[in-house]
Amino acid sequence: MTEKSLPFTKEQLEAIISRFPTPFHIYDEKAMRANAQQFNQAFSWNEGFKEYYAIKAAPNPYLMKILRQEGFGIDCSSMAELEIAEQIGMRGEEIMFTSNDTPAYEFVKAMELGAIINLDDISHIEYLEKHAGLPELLCFRYNPGSLKEGNLIIGHPEEAKYGFTREQMFEGYRLAKAKGVKRFGIHTMVASNELDPGYFVETAEILFTLIAEISAELDIHIEFANLGGGIGIPYRPGQKPVDLTHMSNGIRQMYEKIIVGNGLAPLRIYFESGRAITGPYGYLVSKVLHIKDTYKKFAGLDACMVNLMRPALYGAYHHITVAGKENQPVTGTYDVTGSLCENNDKFAIDRQLPELQPDDIVVIHDTGAHGHAMGFNYNGKLKSAELLLRENGEVVQIRRAETIRDYFATLDFEGLGNFEV
Amino acid sequence: MTEKSLPFTKEQLEAIISRFPTPFHIYDEKAMRANAQQFNQAFSWNEGFKEYYAIKAAPNPYLMKILRQEGFGIDCSSMAELEIAEQIGMRGEEIMFTSNDTPAYEFVKAMELGAIINLDDISHIEYLEKHAGLPELLCFRYNPGSLKEGNLIIGHPEEAKYGFTREQMFEGYRLAKAKGVKRFGIHTMVASNELDPGYFVETAEILFTLIAEISAELDIHIEFANLGGGIGIPYRPGQKPVDLTHMSNGIRQMYEKIIVGNGLAPLRIYFESGRAITGPYGYLVSKVLHIKDTYKKFAGLDACMVNLMRPALYGAYHHITVAGKENQPVTGTYDVTGSLCENNDKFAIDRQLPELQPDDIVVIHDTGAHGHAMGFNYNGKLKSAELLLRENGEVVQIRRAETIRDYFATLDFEGLGNFEV
Repeated sequence: MTEKSLPFTKEQLEAIISRFPTPFHIYDEKAMRANAQQFNQAFSWNEGFKEYYAIKAAPNPYLMKILRQEGFGIDCSSMAELEIAEQIGMRGEEIMFTSNDTPAYEFVKAMELGAIINLDDISHIEYLEKHAGLPELLCFRYNPGSLKEGNLIIGHPEEAKYGFTREQMFEGYRLAKAKGVKRFGIHTMVASNELDPGYFVETAEILFTLIAEISAELDIHIEFANLGGGIGIPYRPGQKPVDLTHMSNGIRQMYEKIIVGNGLAPLRIYFESGRAITGPYGYLVSKVLHIKDTYKKFAGLDACMVNLMRPALYGAYHHITVAGKENQPVTGTYDVTGSLCENNDKFAIDRQLPELQPDDIVVIHDTGAHGHAMGFNYNGKLKSAELLLRENGEVVQIRRAETIRDYFATLDFEGLGNFEV
Repeated sequence: MTEKSLPFTKEQLEAIISRFPTPFHIYDEKAMRANAQQFNQAFSWNEGFKEYYAIKAAPNPYLMKILRQEGFGIDCSSMAELEIAEQIGMRGEEIMFTSNDTPAYEFVKAMELGAIINLDDISHIEYLEKHAGLPELLCFRYNPGSLKEGNLIIGHPEEAKYGFTREQMFEGYRLAKAKGVKRFGIHTMVASNELDPGYFVETAEILFTLIAEISAELDIHIEFANLGGGIGIPYRPGQKPVDLTHMSNGIRQMYEKIIVGNGLAPLRIYFESGRAITGPYGYLVSKVLHIKDTYKKFAGLDACMVNLMRPALYGAYHHITVAGKENQPVTGTYDVTGSLCENNDKFAIDRQLPELQPDDIVVIHDTGAHGHAMGFNYNGKLKSAELLLRENGEVVQIRRAETIRDYFATLDFEGLGNFEV
């Protein structure tokens, strides 16, 4: 098992901690940019290719500003996420608004920004028209349901709340065209955290085939196919990342056969990955607070599930490195816990680690997506700061830690004093 | 199946909604007080009985102020929760500080407030002494591990991160006594959401037996036994709530036999229930935004898992009443969904309900504990307001809804403008 490496030494971490107390998330700009460039490079054959970063994965505008410079768009699913786009100065087709069960005011905002609107349901065509008017360009989310082709497993899409059925796709484009919509895109969603590149090739095949059928029947030109997100990352040492070039070559073959073969080129390929873009380049840095020895051994950190929910929520594996002890023998077995009064507040169960002491610096890997973003304030715990390790080695704060004042912001303590019981 | 009733009519709800837009949580003060009084009444045989409300279940000081008036204390597990106690003016042995993997500054704060400190680990005796000094009164959390008595199932306590082992309990009291601690309490934790009253009687038996053994061996007087929380509530129609009088009688028998029988009376009984105190008396009120018909039927609400996580997290059942349609035939089958771009954002799957239309008022039951408290801001979604239905029928806001400004409070947008990429 190969140990996962860190972009900083223990000494560098100590210097950072002297300025920013633990726990905090820190993102590695250099590695993030290199990966973004690789993604773009893998699809350079496709003119207009664009990855729309699923901002829900790490809704920090500083990260998005960097990704935008690498040519990425933003995938938004709510009012707050649209405001992040606006704050960075993103407008028009840089923004994809892919939501679900959408309130009218979000459609209005998305239209104001000129975002590409990706409708989740056929009834939203009239809802959008009524509340915000119809745009020139419209995109629909396709839910393939229980496809006859058995080798594609997108969970059980027919149970999922997303998207149009096949029949509704035809009906939807027909209706939109009749209502004056001029330009069209198509979108589908795939499973989450998938490491098999063949999976995305199959998704492309399904979507390209549908494009060919729709184009033939309705005489419309579909400009882009958004293949969704779901590209996994290797959380465990020894797992391999998705080979983007291999995946791109497979998609290209389908493109040549189905899109070019049917005279439907050009078609722009879009993605809306989140996890694969920032996930591996974020780290949760924490210190050991207590070592506890009862029926088993516990290493209690100063971080808790508020800072990273995935292990407690899904039993997800996140690799742990003890800074400065990378080469020490792995002789201890620990439950690595947080401080919530919830027994599932554990970052790892029965994890083999070097012997731990209070004040050891514990780094949890792959927290750059669905890390800080998913934190709650249960037990009155506060969310941590986010830092950025810049390419020149400088460390800057890109989000401050929450304070108790933030936690109490929605409470009126003056009113409490006057509240008669 | 008996329908669960609402404390308001559709017309009353519409009047509330005209002042406070959906979604919101609303708590029923009258029912909450009646239940609190019943709890106290059931244990009136025990002098000094006290329920310490586990504030993590609904960390709203307005609710706590009401419960305090009913004689309840507060169970805190973090700095923010201690501050809630302080804001209400609670001090001393009204406050129990029961935490885990505790940082020094929280112990300092708890000591300042004169709270009862309930230590989670034997090593915390010296940690507390070092950072905050030792109090006159100290309590320890007992983890019974894999007890020989086979009929008690507290999950797998030996896997849990909480508490002292049996040997550590003896060692802990001995050490504390040697260090000058004068007064002692004992605590254990039980399973979550348990509906069998016999379970709590068994917990009492175990704890009382341990008290007798410790008292005999160490010549100390243990003043109180905190039996923990975990009293369940009937989420499903037809389920029965825990009969508190039945439970209390069972505990009383054990008390007579073990505590009185060994000359150890008086012993105060404490609880730290959360769910049973506010759970059934809170409702999440929401409106239908969209009806969607694809491979199945979806009713999309204006609430989402940010307002109530339990169904998405645990697959928990929460009963749903459609206001004004209580007596209509249940002819529809719906997935009742929220608006998060997460397929698990569903309040109910395949739920039989009356036919739904947009703008129908959907009330989700039993959200008064672990409801608002557990909300996150994933997808940039905002937490809702909390309202209180007072005994006189008046409705007051006891927490405002979050705004986008709150969501962005930890981001420096000015800095973002100057951030060079």
